[in-house]
Amino acid sequence: MSRITALRTVDVRFPTSLSLDGSDAMNADPDYSAAYVVVDTDAGDDLSGHGFVFTIGRGNEVAVAAIRALEPALVGKEVEPLLTDLGATSAALIGDSQLRWLGPEKGVMHMAISAVLNALWDLRAKRAGLPLWQLLGRLSPEELVDLVDFRYLSDALTREEALEILRAAEPGRAEREVQLLRSGYPAYTTTPGWLGYSDEKLARLATEAVADGFTQIKLKVGADLQDDIRRMTLARKTVGPDIRIAIDANQRWDIEDAIAWTRALAPTDPYWIEEPTSPDDVLGHARIRKGVHPVKVATGEHAQNRVIFKQLLQAEAIDFVQLDAARVGGVNENIAIVLLAAKFGKPVCPHAGGVGLCEMVQHLSMFDFVAVSGSMEDRVIEYVDHLHEMFVTPTVVSQGRYAAPTAAGFSSEMHEKALHDYEFPDGSVWAEINSGGN
Amino acid sequence: MSRITALRTVDVRFPTSLSLDGSDAMNADPDYSAAYVVVDTDAGDDLSGHGFVFTIGRGNEVAVAAIRALEPALVGKEVEPLLTDLGATSAALIGDSQLRWLGPEKGVMHMAISAVLNALWDLRAKRAGLPLWQLLGRLSPEELVDLVDFRYLSDALTREEALEILRAAEPGRAEREVQLLRSGYPAYTTTPGWLGYSDEKLARLATEAVADGFTQIKLKVGADLQDDIRRMTLARKTVGPDIRIAIDANQRWDIEDAIAWTRALAPTDPYWIEEPTSPDDVLGHARIRKGVHPVKVATGEHAQNRVIFKQLLQAEAIDFVQLDAARVGGVNENIAIVLLAAKFGKPVCPHAGGVGLCEMVQHLSMFDFVAVSGSMEDRVIEYVDHLHEMFVTPTVVSQGRYAAPTAAGFSSEMHEKALHDYEFPDGSVWAEINSGGN
Repeated sequence: MSRITALRTVDVRFPTSLSLDGSDAMNADPDYSAAYVVVDTDAGDDLSGHGFVFTIGRGNEVAVAAIRALEPALVGKEVEPLLTDLGATSAALIGDSQLRWLGPEKGVMHMAISAVLNALWDLRAKRAGLPLWQLLGRLSPEELVDLVDFRYLSDALTREEALEILRAAEPGRAEREVQLLRSGYPAYTTTPGWLGYSDEKLARLATEAVADGFTQIKLKVGADLQDDIRRMTLARKTVGPDIRIAIDANQRWDIEDAIAWTRALAPTDPYWIEEPTSPDDVLGHARIRKGVHPVKVATGEHAQNRVIFKQLLQAEAIDFVQLDAARVGGVNENIAIVLLAAKFGKPVCPHAGGVGLCEMVQHLSMFDFVAVSGSMEDRVIEYVDHLHEMFVTPTVVSQGRYAAPTAAGFSSEMHEKALHDYEFPDGSVWAEINSGGN
Repeated sequence: MSRITALRTVDVRFPTSLSLDGSDAMNADPDYSAAYVVVDTDAGDDLSGHGFVFTIGRGNEVAVAAIRALEPALVGKEVEPLLTDLGATSAALIGDSQLRWLGPEKGVMHMAISAVLNALWDLRAKRAGLPLWQLLGRLSPEELVDLVDFRYLSDALTREEALEILRAAEPGRAEREVQLLRSGYPAYTTTPGWLGYSDEKLARLATEAVADGFTQIKLKVGADLQDDIRRMTLARKTVGPDIRIAIDANQRWDIEDAIAWTRALAPTDPYWIEEPTSPDDVLGHARIRKGVHPVKVATGEHAQNRVIFKQLLQAEAIDFVQLDAARVGGVNENIAIVLLAAKFGKPVCPHAGGVGLCEMVQHLSMFDFVAVSGSMEDRVIEYVDHLHEMFVTPTVVSQGRYAAPTAAGFSSEMHEKALHDYEFPDGSVWAEINSGGN
């Protein structure tokens, strides 16, 4: 028997705004950040669980405060029951009748619960000696549906239907594990397309992306139409007709603007338009999807929970389900979302623009492949080449594919030194910046 | 010229769980709380702005942290430009490109922005020497639309359409002000109906409510159907056929459950079913509304922002718009919601179950009457008889009607002594409870 001894939190921020990495139509100068949590135990096995809320700078301390609000629910508790029944653990955290008011199931409080649940999953996978995707991919259909909260889902997906989906995918599981370990999972790259980059840098990075084996890239759009036409034309000319180019407006538009702007870019053959409008606007996405056909619609990185994904699917509002590892209620709610996507026959293509998101979402896509959809068709995981060096077991992408992680855990653990150096505002990096070093 | 000198925050909590005031199917034991903010200036006029995030206990400190995250945007700034152009002030706070990631426009961070904006409105109204409803009701249509962020709304409500609505209501403004000052605004009461109350208490409070002049009461439902049938039958027998009885499930159900449960209660003639399911489920509410006719559907207290209200109206998912003063982005976003309701012809019936919500929402309904809808038909403001004594200018309800506030401000200011005694965890009330006094 072991107990949780602490939720250690760190406010860690990377000064990415200095290079305009991550700049888009709504996010001018992000400092990729993490409200980071370590779940420590007294097991004496040197294993701890690591998770985080991803933010883009200011307000990261609010997410830290939200994680701390979960301490009373966890510190001092026995570890084994919490990890053995992570469905119940998730339900207890999300269902706290007082904390629930702060969402419900959305925003800072939900993201904090996500961080803690993800840390518990990391710990469970480390104890099992398996990468998370493999741990999940070996659970029985019954164990998997026990992880899901079907409240508010039953009009679209019942427990029984979820079981059927999972049972149908059971036969090929072992084979697909082998396939992943051998040849990985397709990636696309957003690295060339940040809005703050010059045309020269865009073209150079797009060329490199193709040379590196990527068959899909993504460009940020939405600040200025003429600029977007110029950049997309340049990108298309650079990569040729066979490389998919997705575009991403980061919620910049109203409905009619989204349709008109996307149509204006249609001659450059964009593959999907991502986050054309408010992530809350299910009906708006449905209208946009009709209006921009044959350009496809992708969204999800800011979709707050399974209820929004359910409606996006019910309303035929999206073509791609862009789940995020750190916004909805952790691994558990993402299992629900993967199941919803399978029910409606839509590919899961995770969001990973940030710090540590590539590390985590790869496990969710690989779980989807092994145990749910059983398919990689039209499925890609976003890849951005920033800050992987901060992680103990960084994502490995080569020839345009994610290598299947083999280290035990959720790949969510940062180096202690990174946590220390980039701690805000007193870590050495910030101390230097704030002393005028920049 | 004056400057903002501080955002003073207080974590204030009332131990309402000790009496089960506020108990419902999802909120078993709320401690009505406020993440309270005072905007102080150096104007030397003894006026400060007061606002708060309403929560139900645990996590109130997270909302306090979120308010503190707004300090750099306000402290040290000149007051007059901020108050003169509260449209720009709102846009700057909500549009902060880094803080935005924590929502966007939802959850803890949005509620904190709401608290600060409401405090600024309180200050502006105090400086003008007017109650907020009168201040708003005397702004020109152009000034009012300048307060609204039409982003994401234009497919349902354009600036021009909003102007038309406001201009159409201009002629009768002065007359309606007089009418409000003379005879107030209709209220309904939730006081009898909390789920934790005994049948005897329910019947006694329902009898008192009718004697007090209320023509509508509300009962919490959703924990147990047989209990609900018994309680509704008792309530109906107690108040007779002419008093409206609304029922409120506080998000308890999935779609089919909501329809079946409400139909099972239909013989007791419920007026509306409130929050039947997830506040995020626009499509679900639309299906429920079709399924429970002629019982009406009301929701909104947990609707996170104008985009959700827009869709609820577009989808014909609700009959009543239950705006909340402290969840969406403050007075500004509530003006947008009042305008949306007018555009779609749905009555605004604010949520006020909590602490200080009655005090604030009365201003919004009265503004609606004076300057937007121009009507009280089928409109009621919720009233709960808890904790008004904590406020400097408490709500006055008599003969089932809210008296129009005449004191300058937003009625959002708590007594300093209340803030002091109920500060969590060190105020005298909590010190006594925690020392075993309870």
